[in-house]
Amino acid sequence: MRLASELLKEIGVTFSGKDFEVSSFETLKNAKKNNLAFFNNEKLINDLKNTNAGGVLLKEKFVKLLPKDVIPMISDDPYLDMAKLSKFFQKTPFKNSSCHTIHKDAVVDRSVIVGDKTSIESGSHIMAGVVLGSNVKIGKNVRIFPNVVIYDDCIIGDNCIIQAGAIIGSDGFGYAHTKLGEHVKIYHNGNVVLEEDVEIGANSTIDRAVFGSTIIKKNTKIDNLVQIGHNCELGESCIVVAQAGISGSTTLGKNVIMGGQSATSGHLKIGDFTTIAARGGVSKSIEGGKTYGGFPLMLQKDWLKIQIKMIKYFGKRGRNLK
Amino acid sequence: MRLASELLKEIGVTFSGKDFEVSSFETLKNAKKNNLAFFNNEKLINDLKNTNAGGVLLKEKFVKLLPKDVIPMISDDPYLDMAKLSKFFQKTPFKNSSCHTIHKDAVVDRSVIVGDKTSIESGSHIMAGVVLGSNVKIGKNVRIFPNVVIYDDCIIGDNCIIQAGAIIGSDGFGYAHTKLGEHVKIYHNGNVVLEEDVEIGANSTIDRAVFGSTIIKKNTKIDNLVQIGHNCELGESCIVVAQAGISGSTTLGKNVIMGGQSATSGHLKIGDFTTIAARGGVSKSIEGGKTYGGFPLMLQKDWLKIQIKMIKYFGKRGRNLK
Amino acid sequence: MRLASELLKEIGVTFSGKDFEVSSFETLKNAKKNNLAFFNNEKLINDLKNTNAGGVLLKEKFVKLLPKDVIPMISDDPYLDMAKLSKFFQKTPFKNSSCHTIHKDAVVDRSVIVGDKTSIESGSHIMAGVVLGSNVKIGKNVRIFPNVVIYDDCIIGDNCIIQAGAIIGSDGFGYAHTKLGEHVKIYHNGNVVLEEDVEIGANSTIDRAVFGSTIIKKNTKIDNLVQIGHNCELGESCIVVAQAGISGSTTLGKNVIMGGQSATSGHLKIGDFTTIAARGGVSKSIEGGKTYGGFPLMLQKDWLKIQIKMIKYFGKRGRNLK
Repeated sequence: MRLASELLKEIGVTFSGKDFEVSSFETLKNAKKNNLAFFNNEKLINDLKNTNAGGVLLKEKFVKLLPKDVIPMISDDPYLDMAKLSKFFQKTPFKNSSCHTIHKDAVVDRSVIVGDKTSIESGSHIMAGVVLGSNVKIGKNVRIFPNVVIYDDCIIGDNCIIQAGAIIGSDGFGYAHTKLGEHVKIYHNGNVVLEEDVEIGANSTIDRAVFGSTIIKKNTKIDNLVQIGHNCELGESCIVVAQAGISGSTTLGKNVIMGGQSATSGHLKIGDFTTIAARGGVSKSIEGGKTYGGFPLMLQKDWLKIQIKMIKYFGKRGRNLK
Repeated sequence: MRLASELLKEIGVTFSGKDFEVSSFETLKNAKKNNLAFFNNEKLINDLKNTNAGGVLLKEKFVKLLPKDVIPMISDDPYLDMAKLSKFFQKTPFKNSSCHTIHKDAVVDRSVIVGDKTSIESGSHIMAGVVLGSNVKIGKNVRIFPNVVIYDDCIIGDNCIIQAGAIIGSDGFGYAHTKLGEHVKIYHNGNVVLEEDVEIGANSTIDRAVFGSTIIKKNTKIDNLVQIGHNCELGESCIVVAQAGISGSTTLGKNVIMGGQSATSGHLKIGDFTTIAARGGVSKSIEGGKTYGGFPLMLQKDWLKIQIKMIKYFGKRGRNLK
Repeated sequence: MRLASELLKEIGVTFSGKDFEVSSFETLKNAKKNNLAFFNNEKLINDLKNTNAGGVLLKEKFVKLLPKDVIPMISDDPYLDMAKLSKFFQKTPFKNSSCHTIHKDAVVDRSVIVGDKTSIESGSHIMAGVVLGSNVKIGKNVRIFPNVVIYDDCIIGDNCIIQAGAIIGSDGFGYAHTKLGEHVKIYHNGNVVLEEDVEIGANSTIDRAVFGSTIIKKNTKIDNLVQIGHNCELGESCIVVAQAGISGSTTLGKNVIMGGQSATSGHLKIGDFTTIAARGGVSKSIEGGKTYGGFPLMLQKDWLKIQIKMIKYFGKRGRNLK
């Protein structure tokens, strides 16, 4: 743990107030005394007013909104400064050691690399070439096929099945941008949580959260070559078909079906029992319970009708006008 | 091998008749005396009438159609019951042993994991980090790049090239669904067969069949990040460009070209010498010999014409109406 | 190195002139005395007239355009004959040896396979299960996550980060075709160069060049499951979002953004500061500085307008006409 004053010095931000040790960044809402937070989204103004963070990176004009015991850290670009600081909280990833806990009824191929403090419970089968980071928790009766990689701190629930080559917990694709157009990496120090009975297809990728968790709830099934962005939350019993992509911070309710090659933008909410047809592109939040398709997204039955009419209309004009 | 009566007891289905040992599930058409089959698709009624299976899961009203010597196994939901039973036929995957056959003129990196009873013929080169399941057959002069995974029972023909990270034989994405919306995994106990001179691109995924084989015929070339579903059959000399996806049980004829990011629904037939342009989405069977594009799919030249006219028409209206 | 006369004999092309040793194929422009080149694209006629190649595969009618000291190698199908010859220049890939150079301040997991003559500079961290081919150069402070594969001859600049499962330097998807419809593999003997501060996402694939280099310039960031074709060149500070695909020989300027699931055809030029929205499909070169979307591609604001008008128009007709 490092002192707040030292961290701010690294990025050239002035620190004043009572110094404290910082364990990590957190959201305004979840931050505690030993956390830093940042404020760059006015929708979260209530979170700012009620935060319990030790200190908050923010523009000068918002300082007056901070609770009295929270230290203001004045920044012209709080998001960029958060990105610059994020790397100081990243531990060395994939630290090996012989200090891990493997249940005697688990089967672990001799080629598997098991990280520091990682645990594997009974009945699980970890196959050749798998790499488990440090502090990973593997539940009971989990089956992990060859060459899967699970990054540090991820949690795999009981009865999960992960097909070969899937990557769980890779860094999310997040950057802050300088005025010169350079991209400053936001180190992702969160994790991925798979609840029980989740299946992940071959070569799919599930990014870890910035802070907090990317969560796949129980009984959700994900096909091959699917991308799940950082901080997504998929409800229970969802189905995500091959080559679909779900962008960062999007939330799916329960029993949502995402068809093959469908996709969503980030920061959306998709309600329970929604079906997105193959290739559907979701760019707004939707309530749920219906079947949508097309891009821009509409009810699937409307998309079909409109396509048919459009083809007929211009197809005919095509022949007339040639 | 387990007794039919025991298996049915596991899923709460009543067994009556002469008991027998069951080796696996099979289709009605291919099943033999030691196989179970199931009937849930009335299109296959002729297969039902002529099946040689030992026993068939089916609804009560169809019992009278069964040949006399086939044992009826009455089920309200034969597909769901098949799914529940499928797990009893899955062997422990990726079983290692020192019992395998490597030709003296094959080159196998010392880090390669070779499964039980797997064989590698002369001239083949298996590179670092590759994991071969059990009972895999690798032909002559095959080149397998690092970190490829080949699941149990798959067959790789002579002169095939498999680029790094490709996954051959992962479980297909198949589930039966309970009335409560839970997904019951169908364990895939079939395999993948690559005939001679097939090339598979980096990080592509080819799912194994439920029963029987997913087949890629000779001289077919598949690019990177392509998904081939379970039970597909690709004809000779096809070309499948990057990020295309072919859904389960679809059949391609010979010399079919699938453009980049194109896709098909499942259970289709695409005729010889068809070309699907980039992004084309195939949702019906097509005869072949022509070039298609768009989604919904049409002749590529019509798609281009219609797009141009549509853009012109609404583009103009756009300016007028602003 | 083999003699030109021997190589041509392998593919049944007559050689006449002064024999010479051939090191590899090259483009007409870059070829030197110990290189072969081929001519099958009349746009490159000036390159032909000025080539310094030792010999050129070309049709008989173009022989008169060759500089006097270049040996003509007459071929009915120069592209096909180049493909046939390409395999003779491929070295055995992923050759291991204990002859490599790892800086004492680099951290290399004990399970990593390091190829012949490969070097790793100070501060770099190569994690478990990574496979590095021969003659790979890894710069300073590079972080390579587990199970990444880097093919022979690739160059990774300082401070690059490569997420788990990414494949750098796989063979491009290039074939010549015989009159019988067979595909003849073009062996890719070039490499991939990542400049400094490049990040590559999990399970992305970057193909090596046919000859020369696929280049990703400094500070460019690539997300998960992205495909970059052979001989592409991405400028500085580009952003390529998940599941995008860039076809062979396409060039991106600097600060180009490619949205999720967007794609380009091959051999295009995309200018500086272009943004391609999610799903945008680029099939012509574009100047840059604007935001495009749709497929066929247009200005993103026009695409949005046209979609809205189209939906309104046919949606209404749909209700009237049912």
